[in-house]
Amino acid sequence: MKLVREFNAARSWNKFLDPRSIILALCGELGELAHHFRWRTRSGRKLSVSKRAEVENEIADIFIFMLALCIEFEIDPEAVVMAKMKKNEKRFPIKAKKND
Amino acid sequence: MKLVREFNAARSWNKFLDPRSIILALCGELGELAHHFRWRTRSGRKLSVSKRAEVENEIADIFIFMLALCIEFEIDPEAVVMAKMKKNEKRFPIKAKKND
Amino acid sequence: MKLVREFNAARSWNKFLDPRSIILALCGELGELAHHFRWRTRSGRKLSVSKRAEVENEIADIFIFMLALCIEFEIDPEAVVMAKMKKNEKRFPIKAKKND
Amino acid sequence: MKLVREFNAARSWNKFLDPRSIILALCGELGELAHHFRWRTRSGRKLSVSKRAEVENEIADIFIFMLALCIEFEIDPEAVVMAKMKKNEKRFPIKAKKND
Repeated sequence: MKLVREFNAARSWNKFLDPRSIILALCGELGELAHHFRWRTRSGRKLSVSKRAEVENEIADIFIFMLALCIEFEIDPEAVVMAKMKKNEKRFPIKAKKND
Repeated sequence: MKLVREFNAARSWNKFLDPRSIILALCGELGELAHHFRWRTRSGRKLSVSKRAEVENEIADIFIFMLALCIEFEIDPEAVVMAKMKKNEKRFPIKAKKND
Repeated sequence: MKLVREFNAARSWNKFLDPRSIILALCGELGELAHHFRWRTRSGRKLSVSKRAEVENEIADIFIFMLALCIEFEIDPEAVVMAKMKKNEKRFPIKAKKND
Repeated sequence: MKLVREFNAARSWNKFLDPRSIILALCGELGELAHHFRWRTRSGRKLSVSKRAEVENEIADIFIFMLALCIEFEIDPEAVVMAKMKKNEKRFPIKAKKND
């Protein structure tokens, strides 16, 4: 997170990184990720080496824009994830089945 | 719609076009569209000639996958749009202001 | 399309309907559609009556925002779809197999 | 990440968490996030307290599904982010202007 913050600050990119822009960028990156898995024949859990590199690339992009969004809103990603996981633990006690 | 149906049938693509695959494809296409408008400096309503061609291309792709989805579910797109517009007319009577 | 145009004009909504806003709205609506099909157990081609109503609703929303986008850019949706289908016909001649 | 892994394992959810399902779930969550920022009047960097709670909630959901995807593919999120940031540093040397 510190790295992303410094990277963007050093390039004066913060003026571009308003929430709507970041979300549109995320939409673009998630779309690229979805593209790799759009057809069922591509949906395997096994990835070829070149496909894995592409998927890792898209995943990194999504994380980087998510961190930029957290910076923008001064959100601590670890804290909100932990808080949500606690809520989820109450909502879905162990032994619960997801069967909807 | 008929054209899309025949196009896919002629290529025996229907087996690929299950709802999840189509939605992932839509996610990919919408992502490409979003990509063109991610930064504010790109958000203008005026499009250059080459940009317009790309945007038209993405828009066509989205419509084509939407039609494939309608075919899959045997939905009449015009009918559901008309029904929704009627609901919207009740929900947002004229003179209503969208100010949330 | 005419209906959507008049609906929005009557409510002076055009000022809200810039491309970025429409694409973010599309992202929201596609997300709602994806939500219905996120888990494999939900991915069946058969929809219950209530689920069908929800899916039709999301599909209508997506078409309506797509039409708003076409209005915004003065794009004729039928024309761009036809043009793209022609390109696709050349790109994927009949008998081609989609096997990537 | 360990937390997400144990949470899902304890609930035997891994069978649901194939890549396509996770990406559809991400599409749903990103859509909810986009929904909050769809109209320009909502795009401010300042969030009300209740809005902030909702945005934090969506952001946490996206991170959690991203971590589930990393688990699925045995990807180390920190490593891929660091690798991508290094690539970005070469691609966009400091003083570069993002002006496309």
